[in-house]
Amino acid sequence: MSDFKKIRELNLKLTKEKIRNSVNVDNFICQAISSIAETDKVINLLSKRLREWYLLYNPEFTNSISDHWKFAELITKKSKEQLLKELRIDYSMGADLKKHDLDAIFNLAKQILNLFKFQQETENYLESIMQDYCPNLKELAGVTIGAKLIGHTGSLKKLMILPASTIQILGAEKALFRHIKTGSRPPKYGIIYWHQFIQSTKRQEQGKRARALADKIAIAARVDYFKGNFIAKKLKQELERKFK
Amino acid sequence: MSDFKKIRELNLKLTKEKIRNSVNVDNFICQAISSIAETDKVINLLSKRLREWYLLYNPEFTNSISDHWKFAELITKKSKEQLLKELRIDYSMGADLKKHDLDAIFNLAKQILNLFKFQQETENYLESIMQDYCPNLKELAGVTIGAKLIGHTGSLKKLMILPASTIQILGAEKALFRHIKTGSRPPKYGIIYWHQFIQSTKRQEQGKRARALADKIAIAARVDYFKGNFIAKKLKQELERKFK
Repeated sequence: MSDFKKIRELNLKLTKEKIRNSVNVDNFICQAISSIAETDKVINLLSKRLREWYLLYNPEFTNSISDHWKFAELITKKSKEQLLKELRIDYSMGADLKKHDLDAIFNLAKQILNLFKFQQETENYLESIMQDYCPNLKELAGVTIGAKLIGHTGSLKKLMILPASTIQILGAEKALFRHIKTGSRPPKYGIIYWHQFIQSTKRQEQGKRARALADKIAIAARVDYFKGNFIAKKLKQELERKFK
Repeated sequence: MSDFKKIRELNLKLTKEKIRNSVNVDNFICQAISSIAETDKVINLLSKRLREWYLLYNPEFTNSISDHWKFAELITKKSKEQLLKELRIDYSMGADLKKHDLDAIFNLAKQILNLFKFQQETENYLESIMQDYCPNLKELAGVTIGAKLIGHTGSLKKLMILPASTIQILGAEKALFRHIKTGSRPPKYGIIYWHQFIQSTKRQEQGKRARALADKIAIAARVDYFKGNFIAKKLKQELERKFK
Protein backbone atom coordinates (compact mmCIF):
# COMPACT_ATOMS: atom_id res chain seq x y z
CA MET A 1 0.00 0.00 0.00
CA SER A 2 2.74 2.35 0.95
CA ASP A 3 4.51 1.49 -2.28
CA PHE A 4 1.42 2.30 -4.28
CA LYS A 5 1.15 5.61 -2.51
CA LYS A 6 4.74 6.39 -3.33
CA ILE A 7 4.20 5.60 -6.98
CA ARG A 8 1.10 7.73 -7.03
CA GLU A 9 2.90 10.68 -5.55
CA LEU A 10 5.83 10.33 -7.87
CA ASN A 11 3.45 10.16 -10.79
CA LEU A 12 1.63 13.28 -9.65
CA LYS A 13 4.88 15.14 -9.37
CA LEU A 14 5.98 14.08 -12.83
CA THR A 15 2.66 15.14 -14.33
CA LYS A 16 2.84 18.51 -12.64
CA GLU A 17 6.32 18.98 -13.98
CA LYS A 18 5.16 18.11 -17.46
CA ILE A 19 2.37 20.65 -17.28
CA ARG A 20 4.81 23.20 -16.01
CA ASN A 21 7.23 22.59 -18.85
CA SER A 22 4.53 22.65 -21.51
CA VAL A 23 4.16 26.43 -21.25
CA ASN A 24 6.02 28.06 -24.12
CA VAL A 25 6.16 31.05 -26.41
CA ASP A 26 3.18 29.80 -28.42
CA ASN A 27 1.00 30.35 -25.36
CA PHE A 28 2.20 33.91 -24.96
CA ILE A 29 1.57 34.68 -28.61
CA CYS A 30 -1.97 33.28 -28.43
CA GLN A 31 -2.76 35.24 -25.28
CA ALA A 32 -1.27 38.48 -26.54
CA ILE A 33 -3.05 38.42 -29.91
CA SER A 34 -6.38 37.54 -28.26
CA SER A 35 -5.85 40.32 -25.79
CA ILE A 36 -5.25 42.80 -28.62
CA ALA A 37 -8.39 41.65 -30.46
CA GLU A 38 -10.48 41.97 -27.32
CA THR A 39 -9.10 45.39 -26.51
CA ASP A 40 -10.22 46.39 -29.96
CA LYS A 41 -13.79 45.35 -29.21
CA VAL A 42 -13.69 47.12 -25.87
CA ILE A 43 -12.41 50.34 -27.39
CA ASN A 44 -15.18 50.30 -29.97
CA LEU A 45 -17.86 49.77 -27.37
CA LEU A 46 -16.63 52.52 -25.08
CA SER A 47 -15.94 54.92 -27.94
CA LYS A 48 -19.53 54.66 -29.10
CA ARG A 49 -20.66 55.57 -25.61
CA LEU A 50 -18.19 58.45 -25.45
CA ARG A 51 -19.47 59.86 -28.74
CA GLU A 52 -23.09 59.65 -27.68
CA TRP A 53 -22.31 61.33 -24.39
CA TYR A 54 -20.12 64.09 -25.82
CA LEU A 55 -22.75 64.71 -28.50
CA LEU A 56 -24.83 66.54 -25.90
CA TYR A 57 -22.05 69.06 -25.48
CA ASN A 58 -20.64 69.46 -28.97
CA PRO A 59 -22.53 67.62 -31.74
CA GLU A 60 -20.81 69.44 -34.62
CA PHE A 61 -17.35 68.20 -33.69
CA THR A 62 -18.53 64.68 -32.88
CA ASN A 63 -19.85 64.24 -36.40
CA SER A 64 -16.80 65.74 -38.07
CA ILE A 65 -14.32 63.06 -37.04
CA SER A 66 -14.54 59.29 -37.37
CA ASP A 67 -11.25 58.11 -35.90
CA HIS A 68 -11.84 57.00 -32.30
CA TRP A 69 -8.33 57.66 -31.08
CA LYS A 70 -8.12 61.14 -32.54
CA PHE A 71 -11.57 61.94 -31.21
CA ALA A 72 -10.72 61.01 -27.62
CA GLU A 73 -7.35 62.74 -27.89
CA LEU A 74 -8.71 66.02 -29.23
CA ILE A 75 -11.66 66.46 -26.88
CA THR A 76 -9.45 66.01 -23.84
CA LYS A 77 -6.82 68.41 -25.13
CA LYS A 78 -8.77 71.25 -26.72
CA SER A 79 -11.69 73.32 -25.51
CA LYS A 80 -15.07 73.38 -27.21
CA GLU A 81 -14.42 76.90 -28.53
CA GLN A 82 -11.14 75.86 -30.14
CA LEU A 83 -12.68 72.82 -31.78
CA LEU A 84 -15.62 74.80 -33.17
CA LYS A 85 -13.34 77.54 -34.42
CA GLU A 86 -11.33 75.00 -36.41
CA LEU A 87 -14.56 73.83 -38.05
CA ARG A 88 -15.59 77.47 -38.63
CA ILE A 89 -18.86 77.11 -36.74
CA ASP A 90 -19.98 80.03 -34.61
CA TYR A 91 -23.23 78.71 -33.15
CA SER A 92 -23.23 75.24 -31.64
CA MET A 93 -26.32 73.14 -31.00
CA GLY A 94 -24.61 71.59 -27.98
CA ALA A 95 -25.57 72.56 -24.46
CA ASP A 96 -23.22 74.29 -22.06
CA LEU A 97 -22.29 71.70 -19.49
CA LYS A 98 -20.97 72.31 -16.03
CA LYS A 99 -17.47 71.22 -15.15
CA HIS A 100 -18.86 68.43 -12.98
CA ASP A 101 -20.74 66.92 -15.93
CA LEU A 102 -17.85 67.39 -18.33
CA ASP A 103 -15.38 65.70 -16.02
CA ALA A 104 -17.42 62.50 -16.17
CA ILE A 105 -17.17 62.56 -19.96
CA PHE A 106 -13.45 63.30 -20.02
CA ASN A 107 -12.89 60.54 -17.51
CA LEU A 108 -14.31 58.08 -20.03
CA ALA A 109 -12.15 59.56 -22.80
CA LYS A 110 -9.07 59.03 -20.65
CA GLN A 111 -9.96 55.39 -20.13
CA ILE A 112 -10.17 54.93 -23.87
CA LEU A 113 -6.80 56.59 -24.43
CA ASN A 114 -5.32 54.32 -21.76
CA LEU A 115 -6.70 51.28 -23.55
CA PHE A 116 -5.22 52.44 -26.85
CA LYS A 117 -1.86 52.79 -25.14
CA PHE A 118 -2.19 49.35 -23.60
CA GLN A 119 -2.98 47.88 -27.00
CA GLN A 120 0.13 49.49 -28.47
CA GLU A 121 2.30 48.16 -25.66
CA THR A 122 0.94 44.66 -26.10
CA GLU A 123 1.70 44.88 -29.80
CA ASN A 124 5.27 45.90 -29.00
CA TYR A 125 5.56 42.97 -26.62
CA LEU A 126 4.19 40.63 -29.26
CA GLU A 127 6.67 41.94 -31.79
CA SER A 128 9.60 41.40 -29.46
CA ILE A 129 8.74 37.78 -28.66
CA MET A 130 8.03 36.97 -32.29
CA GLN A 131 11.36 38.49 -33.28
CA ASP A 132 13.09 35.76 -31.28
CA TYR A 133 10.67 32.93 -31.90
CA CYS A 134 9.68 33.22 -35.55
CA PRO A 135 11.59 36.07 -37.25
CA ASN A 136 10.83 34.86 -40.78
CA LEU A 137 7.10 34.57 -40.21
CA LYS A 138 7.05 37.94 -38.49
CA GLU A 139 8.91 39.65 -41.29
CA LEU A 140 6.93 38.07 -44.09
CA ALA A 141 3.38 38.04 -42.69
CA GLY A 142 3.68 40.94 -40.29
CA VAL A 143 3.23 40.87 -36.52
CA THR A 144 -0.57 40.82 -36.40
CA ILE A 145 -1.22 38.38 -39.22
CA GLY A 146 1.64 36.12 -38.13
CA ALA A 147 0.35 36.03 -34.57
CA LYS A 148 -3.21 35.43 -35.75
CA LEU A 149 -2.05 32.43 -37.80
CA ILE A 150 -0.30 30.97 -34.78
CA GLY A 151 -3.26 31.82 -32.54
CA HIS A 152 -5.65 30.18 -34.97
CA THR A 153 -3.77 26.89 -35.21
CA GLY A 154 -2.58 26.88 -31.60
CA SER A 155 1.18 26.78 -32.08
CA LEU A 156 3.99 27.30 -34.58
CA LYS A 157 4.42 23.54 -34.84
CA LYS A 158 0.81 23.03 -35.84
CA LEU A 159 1.03 25.88 -38.33
CA MET A 160 4.25 24.51 -39.77
CA ILE A 161 2.81 21.10 -40.63
CA LEU A 162 -0.08 22.56 -42.59
CA PRO A 163 0.10 22.67 -46.40
CA ALA A 164 0.23 26.13 -47.99
CA SER A 165 -3.27 25.70 -49.39
CA THR A 166 -4.66 25.34 -45.87
CA ILE A 167 -2.70 28.31 -44.57
CA GLN A 168 -4.18 30.33 -47.41
CA ILE A 169 -7.74 29.92 -46.11
CA LEU A 170 -7.14 29.71 -42.35
CA GLY A 171 -9.87 31.79 -40.75
CA ALA A 172 -12.31 31.27 -43.62
CA GLU A 173 -13.61 27.94 -42.33
CA LYS A 174 -17.22 29.01 -42.57
CA ALA A 175 -16.92 29.75 -46.28
CA LEU A 176 -14.92 26.57 -46.83
CA PHE A 177 -17.54 24.30 -45.29
CA ARG A 178 -20.30 26.13 -47.11
CA HIS A 179 -18.35 25.38 -50.28
CA ILE A 180 -18.06 21.69 -49.41
CA LYS A 181 -21.72 21.38 -48.40
CA THR A 182 -23.53 23.48 -50.97
CA GLY A 183 -21.01 23.77 -53.79
CA SER A 184 -20.75 27.56 -53.54
CA ARG A 185 -17.49 29.13 -54.62
CA PRO A 186 -14.53 28.25 -52.39
CA PRO A 187 -12.85 30.96 -50.31
CA LYS A 188 -9.67 32.46 -51.74
CA TYR A 189 -8.18 33.79 -48.52
CA GLY A 190 -8.70 33.87 -44.77
CA ILE A 191 -6.61 35.71 -42.21
CA ILE A 192 -3.95 36.66 -44.76
CA TYR A 193 -6.51 38.73 -46.68
CA TRP A 194 -5.52 41.78 -44.60
CA HIS A 195 -1.88 41.56 -45.67
CA GLN A 196 -0.57 44.64 -47.45
CA PHE A 197 0.51 42.48 -50.39
CA ILE A 198 -3.09 41.41 -51.07
CA GLN A 199 -4.81 44.61 -50.04
CA SER A 200 -2.75 46.76 -52.37
CA THR A 201 -3.97 45.12 -55.58
CA LYS A 202 -7.24 44.86 -57.44
CA ARG A 203 -9.83 42.17 -56.81
CA GLN A 204 -9.05 39.86 -59.72
CA GLU A 205 -5.40 39.60 -58.66
CA GLN A 206 -6.05 38.94 -54.98
CA GLY A 207 -6.69 35.21 -55.26
CA LYS A 208 -3.44 34.58 -57.10
CA ARG A 209 -1.50 36.72 -54.69
CA ALA A 210 -3.03 34.95 -51.69
CA ARG A 211 -1.84 31.60 -53.06
CA ALA A 212 1.68 32.86 -53.62
CA LEU A 213 1.83 34.54 -50.22
CA ALA A 214 0.57 31.41 -48.44
CA ASP A 215 3.31 29.40 -50.20
CA LYS A 216 5.99 31.66 -48.81
CA ILE A 217 4.42 31.81 -45.35
CA ALA A 218 4.45 28.01 -45.20
CA ILE A 219 8.16 28.03 -46.03
CA ALA A 220 8.87 30.76 -43.48
CA ALA A 221 7.01 28.89 -40.71
CA ARG A 222 8.97 25.71 -41.40
CA VAL A 223 12.30 27.50 -41.41
CA ASP A 224 11.38 29.21 -38.14
CA TYR A 225 10.35 25.99 -36.47
CA PHE A 226 13.65 24.31 -37.29
CA LYS A 227 15.58 27.43 -36.35
CA GLY A 228 16.93 28.09 -39.84
CA ASN A 229 18.48 31.23 -41.24
CA PHE A 230 16.74 34.52 -41.85
CA ILE A 231 15.38 34.16 -45.38
CA ALA A 232 12.25 36.33 -45.17
CA LYS A 233 13.84 39.16 -47.16
CA LYS A 234 14.63 36.78 -50.01
CA LEU A 235 11.13 35.30 -49.96
CA LYS A 236 9.67 38.78 -50.09
CA GLN A 237 11.77 39.69 -53.10
CA GLU A 238 10.68 36.55 -54.91
CA LEU A 239 7.06 37.44 -54.30
CA GLU A 240 7.49 40.96 -55.55
CA ARG A 241 9.37 39.86 -58.64
CA LYS A 242 6.60 37.41 -59.51
CA PHE A 243 3.88 40.06 -59.43
CA LYS A 244 5.68 42.99 -60.95
CA MET B 1 -36.53 86.10 -51.80
CA SER B 2 -34.47 87.96 -49.28
CA ASP B 3 -37.38 87.91 -46.86
CA PHE B 4 -37.76 84.17 -47.24
CA LYS B 5 -34.09 83.76 -46.60
CA LYS B 6 -34.33 85.80 -43.44
CA ILE B 7 -37.25 83.74 -42.17
CA ARG B 8 -35.36 80.56 -42.95
CA GLU B 9 -32.32 81.69 -41.05
CA LEU B 10 -34.33 82.82 -38.08
CA ASN B 11 -36.11 79.51 -38.05
CA LEU B 12 -32.86 77.60 -38.19
CA LYS B 13 -31.53 79.58 -35.27
CA LEU B 14 -34.64 78.95 -33.20
CA THR B 15 -34.50 75.25 -33.91
CA LYS B 16 -30.85 75.09 -32.94
CA GLU B 17 -31.62 76.88 -29.72
CA LYS B 18 -34.41 74.44 -28.96
CA ILE B 19 -32.07 71.49 -29.49
CA ARG B 20 -29.53 73.15 -27.28
CA ASN B 21 -32.00 73.72 -24.47
CA SER B 22 -33.40 70.21 -24.66
CA VAL B 23 -30.31 68.73 -23.03
CA ASN B 24 -31.02 68.04 -19.37
CA VAL B 25 -30.13 65.91 -16.40
CA ASP B 26 -32.12 62.97 -17.79
CA ASN B 27 -29.58 62.70 -20.58
CA PHE B 28 -26.67 62.60 -18.17
CA ILE B 29 -28.33 59.94 -16.08
CA CYS B 30 -29.00 57.78 -19.15
CA GLN B 31 -25.44 58.14 -20.40
CA ALA B 32 -23.85 57.51 -17.03
CA ILE B 33 -25.86 54.37 -16.26
CA SER B 34 -25.23 52.97 -19.75
CA SER B 35 -21.56 53.72 -19.34
CA ILE B 36 -21.50 51.83 -16.05
CA ALA B 37 -23.27 48.84 -17.58
CA GLU B 38 -20.88 48.76 -20.53
CA THR B 39 -17.83 49.06 -18.29
CA ASP B 40 -19.15 46.02 -16.49
CA LYS B 41 -19.19 44.03 -19.73
CA VAL B 42 -15.72 45.25 -20.62
CA ILE B 43 -14.28 44.31 -17.24
CA ASN B 44 -15.72 40.81 -17.54
CA LEU B 45 -14.27 40.32 -20.99
CA LEU B 46 -10.79 41.52 -20.05
CA SER B 47 -10.80 39.70 -16.72
CA LYS B 48 -11.45 36.40 -18.45
CA ARG B 49 -8.46 37.06 -20.68
CA LEU B 50 -6.31 38.03 -17.68
CA ARG B 51 -7.21 34.82 -15.88
CA GLU B 52 -6.41 32.68 -18.88
CA TRP B 53 -3.09 34.45 -19.37
CA TYR B 54 -2.06 34.39 -15.71
CA LEU B 55 -3.02 30.71 -15.52
CA LEU B 56 0.21 29.87 -17.34
CA TYR B 57 2.17 31.37 -14.48
CA ASN B 58 0.16 30.45 -11.41
CA PRO B 59 -2.85 28.17 -12.01
CA GLU B 60 -3.39 27.32 -8.34
CA PHE B 61 -4.05 30.90 -7.32
CA THR B 62 -6.18 31.66 -10.39
CA ASN B 63 -8.62 28.94 -9.47
CA SER B 64 -8.76 29.85 -5.80
CA ILE B 65 -10.40 33.25 -6.23
CA SER B 66 -13.49 34.24 -8.19
CA ASP B 67 -13.77 37.98 -7.59
CA HIS B 68 -12.30 39.83 -10.58
CA TRP B 69 -11.31 42.95 -8.71
CA LYS B 70 -9.57 41.10 -5.89
CA PHE B 71 -7.80 38.88 -8.40
CA ALA B 72 -6.35 41.77 -10.40
CA GLU B 73 -5.45 43.62 -7.21
CA LEU B 74 -3.66 40.71 -5.57
CA ILE B 75 -1.60 39.53 -8.52
CA THR B 76 -0.19 43.03 -9.08
CA LYS B 77 0.61 43.52 -5.42
CA LYS B 78 1.94 40.17 -4.26
CA SER B 79 4.54 37.84 -5.68
CA LYS B 80 3.81 34.31 -6.81
CA GLU B 81 5.66 32.90 -3.79
CA GLN B 82 3.57 34.92 -1.36
CA LEU B 83 0.31 33.92 -3.01
CA LEU B 84 1.22 30.23 -3.04
CA LYS B 85 2.36 30.36 0.57
CA GLU B 86 -1.03 31.72 1.62
CA LEU B 87 -2.67 28.77 -0.12
CA ARG B 88 -0.14 26.40 1.49
CA ILE B 89 1.04 24.99 -1.83
CA ASP B 90 4.70 24.24 -2.23
CA TYR B 91 4.87 22.97 -5.79
CA SER B 92 3.14 25.01 -8.48
CA MET B 93 2.19 23.70 -11.91
CA GLY B 94 2.76 27.19 -13.34
CA ALA B 95 5.82 27.97 -15.43
CA ASP B 96 8.48 30.45 -14.38
CA LEU B 97 8.01 33.45 -16.64
CA LYS B 98 10.57 36.08 -17.45
CA LYS B 99 9.97 39.64 -16.30
CA HIS B 100 9.29 40.68 -19.88
CA ASP B 101 6.42 38.20 -20.21
CA LEU B 102 5.04 38.98 -16.77
CA ASP B 103 4.96 42.71 -17.43
CA ALA B 104 2.57 42.18 -20.32
CA ILE B 105 0.20 40.32 -17.98
CA PHE B 106 0.43 42.91 -15.22
CA ASN B 107 -0.18 45.63 -17.75
CA LEU B 108 -3.54 44.05 -18.52
CA ALA B 109 -4.31 43.73 -14.81
CA LYS B 110 -3.63 47.44 -14.36
CA GLN B 111 -6.05 48.30 -17.14
CA ILE B 112 -8.74 46.29 -15.39
CA LEU B 113 -8.07 48.02 -12.08
CA ASN B 114 -8.29 51.39 -13.86
CA LEU B 115 -11.64 50.44 -15.32
CA PHE B 116 -12.93 49.42 -11.90
CA LYS B 117 -11.87 52.81 -10.57
CA PHE B 118 -13.53 54.56 -13.48
CA GLN B 119 -16.75 52.67 -12.83
CA GLN B 120 -16.67 53.73 -9.20
CA GLU B 121 -16.13 57.37 -10.12
CA THR B 122 -19.00 57.31 -12.59
CA GLU B 123 -21.22 55.85 -9.90
CA ASN B 124 -20.24 58.68 -7.56
CA TYR B 125 -21.02 61.20 -10.29
CA LEU B 126 -24.38 59.56 -10.91
CA GLU B 127 -25.17 59.66 -7.22
CA SER B 128 -24.36 63.36 -6.99
CA ILE B 129 -26.59 64.38 -9.91
CA MET B 130 -29.43 62.18 -8.73
CA GLN B 131 -29.18 63.70 -5.25
CA ASP B 132 -30.18 67.05 -6.77
CA TYR B 133 -32.54 65.83 -9.43
CA CYS B 134 -34.53 63.02 -7.83
CA PRO B 135 -33.57 62.61 -4.15
CA ASN B 136 -36.66 60.56 -3.29
CA LEU B 137 -36.21 58.08 -6.10
CA LYS B 138 -32.52 57.80 -5.31
CA GLU B 139 -33.12 57.16 -1.62
CA LEU B 140 -35.94 54.68 -2.14
CA ALA B 141 -34.77 52.70 -5.18
CA GLY B 142 -31.03 53.18 -4.80
CA VAL B 143 -28.66 54.86 -7.26
CA THR B 144 -28.30 52.00 -9.74
CA ILE B 145 -31.91 50.85 -9.85
CA GLY B 146 -33.24 54.42 -9.89
CA ALA B 147 -30.93 55.34 -12.76
CA LYS B 148 -31.84 52.17 -14.64
CA LEU B 149 -35.54 53.00 -14.33
CA ILE B 150 -34.93 56.49 -15.75
CA GLY B 151 -32.59 55.09 -18.42
CA HIS B 152 -35.18 52.50 -19.41
CA THR B 153 -38.02 54.96 -19.87
CA GLY B 154 -35.88 57.83 -21.17
CA SER B 155 -36.58 60.50 -18.58
CA LEU B 156 -37.99 61.18 -15.13
CA LYS B 157 -41.11 62.66 -16.71
CA LYS B 158 -41.82 59.50 -18.67
CA LEU B 159 -41.19 57.37 -15.61
CA MET B 160 -43.43 59.57 -13.49
CA ILE B 161 -46.50 59.18 -15.73
CA LEU B 162 -46.35 55.38 -15.65
CA PRO B 163 -48.67 53.45 -13.33
CA ALA B 164 -47.01 51.52 -10.51
CA SER B 165 -47.91 48.21 -12.14
CA THR B 166 -45.85 49.15 -15.19
CA ILE B 167 -42.91 50.32 -13.11
CA GLN B 168 -43.01 46.97 -11.34
CA ILE B 169 -42.22 45.05 -14.53
CA LEU B 170 -40.06 47.59 -16.40
CA GLY B 171 -37.21 45.62 -17.91
CA ALA B 172 -39.19 42.37 -18.10
CA GLU B 173 -40.84 43.20 -21.44
CA LYS B 174 -39.82 39.92 -22.98
CA ALA B 175 -41.60 37.92 -20.30
CA LEU B 176 -44.58 40.27 -20.44
CA PHE B 177 -45.14 39.83 -24.16
CA ARG B 178 -44.60 36.11 -23.88
CA HIS B 179 -47.35 36.17 -21.26
CA ILE B 180 -49.70 38.12 -23.56
CA LYS B 181 -48.95 35.96 -26.58
CA THR B 182 -48.78 32.46 -25.15
CA GLY B 183 -50.56 32.82 -21.83
CA SER B 184 -47.50 31.84 -19.78
CA ARG B 185 -47.24 33.25 -16.27
CA PRO B 186 -46.81 37.03 -16.13
CA PRO B 187 -43.55 38.50 -14.79
CA LYS B 188 -43.58 39.67 -11.20
CA TYR B 189 -40.68 42.09 -11.38
CA GLY B 190 -38.24 43.70 -13.80
CA ILE B 191 -35.38 46.04 -12.96
CA ILE B 192 -36.50 46.39 -9.34
CA TYR B 193 -35.84 42.68 -8.74
CA TRP B 194 -32.30 43.50 -7.67
CA HIS B 195 -33.44 45.82 -4.90
CA GLN B 196 -32.31 44.82 -1.42
CA PHE B 197 -35.92 44.84 -0.23
CA ILE B 198 -36.85 42.07 -2.68
CA GLN B 199 -33.56 40.18 -2.63
CA SER B 200 -33.56 39.79 1.15
CA THR B 201 -36.72 37.71 1.30
CA LYS B 202 -37.80 34.28 0.16
CA ARG B 203 -39.25 33.54 -3.23
CA GLN B 204 -42.94 33.38 -2.33
CA GLU B 205 -42.81 36.85 -0.79
CA GLN B 206 -40.94 38.53 -3.64
CA GLY B 207 -43.96 39.18 -5.87
CA LYS B 208 -45.88 40.93 -3.12
CA ARG B 209 -42.89 42.97 -2.12
CA ALA B 210 -42.24 43.99 -5.73
CA ARG B 211 -45.77 45.34 -6.02
CA ALA B 212 -45.48 47.35 -2.80
CA LEU B 213 -42.06 48.69 -3.74
CA ALA B 214 -43.24 49.73 -7.22
CA ASP B 215 -46.14 51.62 -5.58
CA LYS B 216 -43.78 53.63 -3.46
CA ILE B 217 -41.35 54.22 -6.33
CA ALA B 218 -44.18 55.63 -8.43
CA ILE B 219 -45.01 58.06 -5.63
CA ALA B 220 -41.36 59.04 -5.18
CA ALA B 221 -40.90 59.70 -8.90
CA ARG B 222 -43.96 61.96 -8.98
CA VAL B 223 -42.87 63.91 -5.93
CA ASP B 224 -39.40 64.35 -7.44
CA TYR B 225 -40.75 65.55 -10.75
CA PHE B 226 -42.86 68.26 -9.13
CA LYS B 227 -40.02 69.18 -6.77
CA GLY B 228 -41.84 68.13 -3.61
CA ASN B 229 -40.40 67.50 -0.15
CA PHE B 230 -38.11 64.69 0.85
CA ILE B 231 -40.48 61.89 1.81
CA ALA B 232 -38.42 58.82 0.91
CA LYS B 233 -37.59 58.02 4.53
CA LYS B 234 -41.30 57.94 5.37
CA LEU B 235 -42.10 55.75 2.36
CA LYS B 236 -39.37 53.35 3.35
CA GLN B 237 -40.73 53.07 6.89
CA GLU B 238 -44.20 52.36 5.55
CA LEU B 239 -42.82 49.56 3.40
CA GLU B 240 -40.91 48.02 6.25
CA ARG B 241 -43.87 48.20 8.59
CA LYS B 242 -46.06 46.45 6.04
CA PHE B 243 -43.73 43.47 5.70
CA LYS B 244 -42.61 43.04 9.24
